[in-house]
Amino acid sequence: MTALRIGLIGTGFIGRSHAIALSAVGTVFDEIQPPVLELVADVNETRAEAARRALGFRRGTGDWRTLITDPAVDIVDVCTPNHLHREMVLAALAAGKHVYCEKPLALVASEAAEMAAAADRAGVTHLVGFNFPCNPILQTVREMLAAGELGEMIGFRGRYLEDYLADAALPFSWRCERRLAGPGALADLGSHLINLGHVLVGDLARLHATLHTVIRERIEPATKKPRRVENEDVAYALVEFANGAPGSFEISRVAAGYKHGLAVRIFGTRGSLAYDQERFNELRVYRNEDLAGRRGFRTILAGPEHTDYRPFCPAPGHGLGINDLKVIETRNLLRAIATGERAQPDFHEGARVQYVMDMFERSNAEGAWVTLAPRGVSGRSAA
Amino acid sequence: MTALRIGLIGTGFIGRSHAIALSAVGTVFDEIQPPVLELVADVNETRAEAARRALGFRRGTGDWRTLITDPAVDIVDVCTPNHLHREMVLAALAAGKHVYCEKPLALVASEAAEMAAAADRAGVTHLVGFNFPCNPILQTVREMLAAGELGEMIGFRGRYLEDYLADAALPFSWRCERRLAGPGALADLGSHLINLGHVLVGDLARLHATLHTVIRERIEPATKKPRRVENEDVAYALVEFANGAPGSFEISRVAAGYKHGLAVRIFGTRGSLAYDQERFNELRVYRNEDLAGRRGFRTILAGPEHTDYRPFCPAPGHGLGINDLKVIETRNLLRAIATGERAQPDFHEGARVQYVMDMFERSNAEGAWVTLAPRGVSGRSAA
Amino acid sequence: MTALRIGLIGTGFIGRSHAIALSAVGTVFDEIQPPVLELVADVNETRAEAARRALGFRRGTGDWRTLITDPAVDIVDVCTPNHLHREMVLAALAAGKHVYCEKPLALVASEAAEMAAAADRAGVTHLVGFNFPCNPILQTVREMLAAGELGEMIGFRGRYLEDYLADAALPFSWRCERRLAGPGALADLGSHLINLGHVLVGDLARLHATLHTVIRERIEPATKKPRRVENEDVAYALVEFANGAPGSFEISRVAAGYKHGLAVRIFGTRGSLAYDQERFNELRVYRNEDLAGRRGFRTILAGPEHTDYRPFCPAPGHGLGINDLKVIETRNLLRAIATGERAQPDFHEGARVQYVMDMFERSNAEGAWVTLAPRGVSGRSAA
Amino acid sequence: MTALRIGLIGTGFIGRSHAIALSAVGTVFDEIQPPVLELVADVNETRAEAARRALGFRRGTGDWRTLITDPAVDIVDVCTPNHLHREMVLAALAAGKHVYCEKPLALVASEAAEMAAAADRAGVTHLVGFNFPCNPILQTVREMLAAGELGEMIGFRGRYLEDYLADAALPFSWRCERRLAGPGALADLGSHLINLGHVLVGDLARLHATLHTVIRERIEPATKKPRRVENEDVAYALVEFANGAPGSFEISRVAAGYKHGLAVRIFGTRGSLAYDQERFNELRVYRNEDLAGRRGFRTILAGPEHTDYRPFCPAPGHGLGINDLKVIETRNLLRAIATGERAQPDFHEGARVQYVMDMFERSNAEGAWVTLAPRGVSGRSAA
Repeated sequence: MTALRIGLIGTGFIGRSHAIALSAVGTVFDEIQPPVLELVADVNETRAEAARRALGFRRGTGDWRTLITDPAVDIVDVCTPNHLHREMVLAALAAGKHVYCEKPLALVASEAAEMAAAADRAGVTHLVGFNFPCNPILQTVREMLAAGELGEMIGFRGRYLEDYLADAALPFSWRCERRLAGPGALADLGSHLINLGHVLVGDLARLHATLHTVIRERIEPATKKPRRVENEDVAYALVEFANGAPGSFEISRVAAGYKHGLAVRIFGTRGSLAYDQERFNELRVYRNEDLAGRRGFRTILAGPEHTDYRPFCPAPGHGLGINDLKVIETRNLLRAIATGERAQPDFHEGARVQYVMDMFERSNAEGAWVTLAPRGVSGRSAA
Repeated sequence: MTALRIGLIGTGFIGRSHAIALSAVGTVFDEIQPPVLELVADVNETRAEAARRALGFRRGTGDWRTLITDPAVDIVDVCTPNHLHREMVLAALAAGKHVYCEKPLALVASEAAEMAAAADRAGVTHLVGFNFPCNPILQTVREMLAAGELGEMIGFRGRYLEDYLADAALPFSWRCERRLAGPGALADLGSHLINLGHVLVGDLARLHATLHTVIRERIEPATKKPRRVENEDVAYALVEFANGAPGSFEISRVAAGYKHGLAVRIFGTRGSLAYDQERFNELRVYRNEDLAGRRGFRTILAGPEHTDYRPFCPAPGHGLGINDLKVIETRNLLRAIATGERAQPDFHEGARVQYVMDMFERSNAEGAWVTLAPRGVSGRSAA
Repeated sequence: MTALRIGLIGTGFIGRSHAIALSAVGTVFDEIQPPVLELVADVNETRAEAARRALGFRRGTGDWRTLITDPAVDIVDVCTPNHLHREMVLAALAAGKHVYCEKPLALVASEAAEMAAAADRAGVTHLVGFNFPCNPILQTVREMLAAGELGEMIGFRGRYLEDYLADAALPFSWRCERRLAGPGALADLGSHLINLGHVLVGDLARLHATLHTVIRERIEPATKKPRRVENEDVAYALVEFANGAPGSFEISRVAAGYKHGLAVRIFGTRGSLAYDQERFNELRVYRNEDLAGRRGFRTILAGPEHTDYRPFCPAPGHGLGINDLKVIETRNLLRAIATGERAQPDFHEGARVQYVMDMFERSNAEGAWVTLAPRGVSGRSAA
Repeated sequence: MTALRIGLIGTGFIGRSHAIALSAVGTVFDEIQPPVLELVADVNETRAEAARRALGFRRGTGDWRTLITDPAVDIVDVCTPNHLHREMVLAALAAGKHVYCEKPLALVASEAAEMAAAADRAGVTHLVGFNFPCNPILQTVREMLAAGELGEMIGFRGRYLEDYLADAALPFSWRCERRLAGPGALADLGSHLINLGHVLVGDLARLHATLHTVIRERIEPATKKPRRVENEDVAYALVEFANGAPGSFEISRVAAGYKHGLAVRIFGTRGSLAYDQERFNELRVYRNEDLAGRRGFRTILAGPEHTDYRPFCPAPGHGLGINDLKVIETRNLLRAIATGERAQPDFHEGARVQYVMDMFERSNAEGAWVTLAPRGVSGRSAA
């Protein structure tokens, strides 16, 4: 098998984490041919050259369109701000490239659906970067649920709290502007949580959401004047999954003290579990059948018994890091391309998540429940 | 000051905890004259005599009506099942007694409002047993919030999870029958959580709730046949407080692994806090103004700096128990009678909580938001 | 059975906790006849009268010798500073009273042995107030160990950290003076930890200890001048139990942040457990035989399955408080008197603990291991 | 700067983690020229070729001596079993290579001292793989201690518990054989803990240790017969640091439930801190000067304010993994070679740790305190 060649667009926080993962994936996973870091694009030649050196690519370019049509690029990896995803992804698909795009896939559901449809037509491999389910502990949760270890599922609670905008003195930024960011906390955080709900429980059947912009104005750096924040700081929802389980979601970018506060609780008829991303090498599980007087939540530490942990470390409790989840994600992408199997989560999942975000906004606008359309044939289209 | 004389009706779990608290309150709190455990009523003379001996009362009776009119009883303490509260409380008020009633005050809001009105007319002291806010740590939370230590409040999350009905094999009981219990998890657990929301944040302005009976049938012991459960196992709500803060509630009696899972998170513009009843001698607080790189949730252990802790123990971190909260509650009652000041939480709070529970049920039935009436003059009437 | 009548000497922190416990014990435990709080002694009539009212005793006296010979007193309860224990206890025993004495029993081992021998001769019931093992969770630990749930014991770790003298600005007090306190952290904290080691593992066979006075001088309030601290702030020991298990002890009164930091870990061939007094309603247990990939420490919450919890509360996870442990301790005393069985822990255990403390000091002085004498016939004498 | 070329010997668990780190270091750290994975040696050509492909090296060899003299190798990276370190390291130094050697440096102190002296003579860069102090949270601890944030240090507690040999049914292996492993838990775990003590507190002045082989025999796979375990399962020590602070160590390879249980507590006159490797992205800190009633241990999550975290991720709380610590370690090595500054921890530290381990054994054999020699001139020689 020939090594796959990466063209990366966007060299900020997330682009850098992709480069780190792509550097390591071939060493971590024996079965993976290390990809070639072929070409990196940034907004101009100078920055592209700096990124090339820093991230270890062969070549750099100041023009992302060049990257997309470069014959030495097999996979276009889109790590740019949200509002640029659509154009770049559609161009890459048109050029017949495999596409790896960061989340959220787009700014609104209609764009995301368009991108998913284009991906189908292009017949390439596509993957959107919802990396949390790659965590061995969460892969284990999926296995536990599939095996019925918790019995029938009777409830789900998910929250994703961070405080990156909790300080009211932080200036107005692109994150607060709908044209550039789309939704606020929903896009940054909620998209991950919705995806995780899909992975662990399944599709949502209906929801009732409220959105709140708690800090209504922030100072625009250019003008030094207050500017209205255009998207939500906080979102709450009551939900019902297609499997009948009720639940609730809470999403906030102004929750003081929470740095990576994605957490879920799943309730079943035989037990329950709790997971917190701030301690993502741990899982807390309670099982009804444990002996009376000896029952309690077990704190399980990630270890080689858990899927995809061992290639990083054969010893339990040593702990994976956030970039390791990206290593697993890139393995999934490269493996899917090699085998021709569909990657997970692909653009259809990206589009479904975007659709659910749109429904959060619609429910909030209408002050009422909204019923979600089921996914289309083969689970591919997002209604 | 003459010792106040107690007449206790109901000698189960909760009646017993009252007796323990009433035995200790005079010793714990120097300023409190120990009450006299005068008379205890149970369903017949035999059980009443057993309870008299076990709980240390002077006299017992098999007829609660006798107790209520007994001239040697100053305070009627109602610890019977929920559906009996109304009749007993109204009789006690009619007899001019001070009344101490366990929560929930009644089965529906209209009854609770009737009881609160009767209490006003009687001109006596009345208190309903929402004991959690007596916890020194939660008294501290109130003080912190009042002093603005967290800044402006921008969010509230409350949940109360237990698993006493999580096992689907548990039989049908009075708790599942609307005529005897009123609501299900809402009455047992939600009433406490609503009260705590009132105490920590203030009144609710509107809410959107869903109720779910997850285990739909249970075996009726008498008939050995399945019988439909008549009230909810789980309740979720989106809420908005009168102060504008949004929030969410989650209540469940089928949450495997949770034994006393009342927990709240409060978000402010200067910090946030988290409290969990299963570790009720602890409070977790995050403050934005702590130094960068040194910020984190502090785990504060209850100690003599916290209101009402010191009379139990002058040393920090030694830990109060659940019955100690009842000791503080009975101190509040006895002190209110002695001073003539209004007790907190009184029947108006009991009625308000009941009103909110009714609104949970209405919102669920209508699938829509309901707006709550504000409290009446002097905060006394519950709409 | 006639109610037993208590004579309490000493009305500080610990005397008050005894009074609270004695007030509640008859209500909590059905089988216990409530004791009569007959007579309380303090240093003068004024304080004794204040204590009488505050703690609910029938009579007060300014002369403890009067109390000891009072014919209406069945049990003398000694809650005075350590250096007064010996004289009072010997007088009470001479008067034929049952004796309840706070820990540590004496200032040095020889005195404690004298007291234990006198108690034997008096033929009365005697108990020393090591209350931690009364905790239902620790009673459960004993049962687990006895049943071999952890297999063969292969290690013990105990520490008791507090910070009541961590502040170097705190003045010189009786606690720092050998004539009044005996040892320092060893007496206050170490005595509890040694007792707990006895209860959970068994007697020590040998030990090697070091003692450290970390804050060497403190200001004497009377003179405003520095005065040398005469006993240790910190003690460490390597130990070997008679059953062959090795272990270590750490004791400190200057450990910033620890409020009630008694904690033990026990290692066995089939699992291990961890206990922390700051969360004394919890036990963490790991069992090797749990399924691979599902193993982890379980956090067990105290509940009615655990011995002596149910009389306080039939619901799990509600939490006992520090005074509740004293309620169980007084139950043990009253029950032992009623049945004529030996109380646990009695003065022989008090003397054994004192002997071990002496051996800590000897080992430190010699810089060498010391071998401990085994207990005498019937486990009664402390060498 | 020309890229440095790595020759790796040993391709097990630890060699693999080196390869992962070396693949990523140039991408994570902008200032680092990615090293070239030039040559890998294993026990024969077949395994070497497999490792070459799996770990991404240019060439493989079945003969480590070839690797050491290969002119295209700048750094010899020794990841073989402990008993092979000495011969390989001395050969590499003789060949004038920089040497990166895993811990423990040797089997006994005399060998380690020989290796450190040879390294000095060779004038190359040398580093031993004690990676835990690379953790940004522990770098922060060093900074806090250096800045006096905890005041004067008055105590240290370190333990390193794992359970990889807790199961008595595990067979006899090289780890149990003195000729191959040297000490047992001391070498595997204690060496890390001793190094961490050096880094956080400083050199030890004296110690008193006990060693215990708790599972005395294990089945030899070849013979199916019991064979005596030749080194210790458990080690305890009382220690005094050169700065006067007392402390204790506990080390075990048979501690059920502990997977990576390295933990330290440091006590100072102004506060204390607690660290646990199983949650190595967290630090718990208590400061006396926090406001009364608001004091408690803060749980600080690792973030970009902490040294060397930001290159992995600009967002706090996202969590580093165990291999990321090796990335920092390899950065330290490559940077030291580039700058010509001494690497930390170098072979002198490796030799000092080995010396301390020898002193544990001597103290245990003599049943007495041993006084440690101070380090030699420039802190380079280990006595």
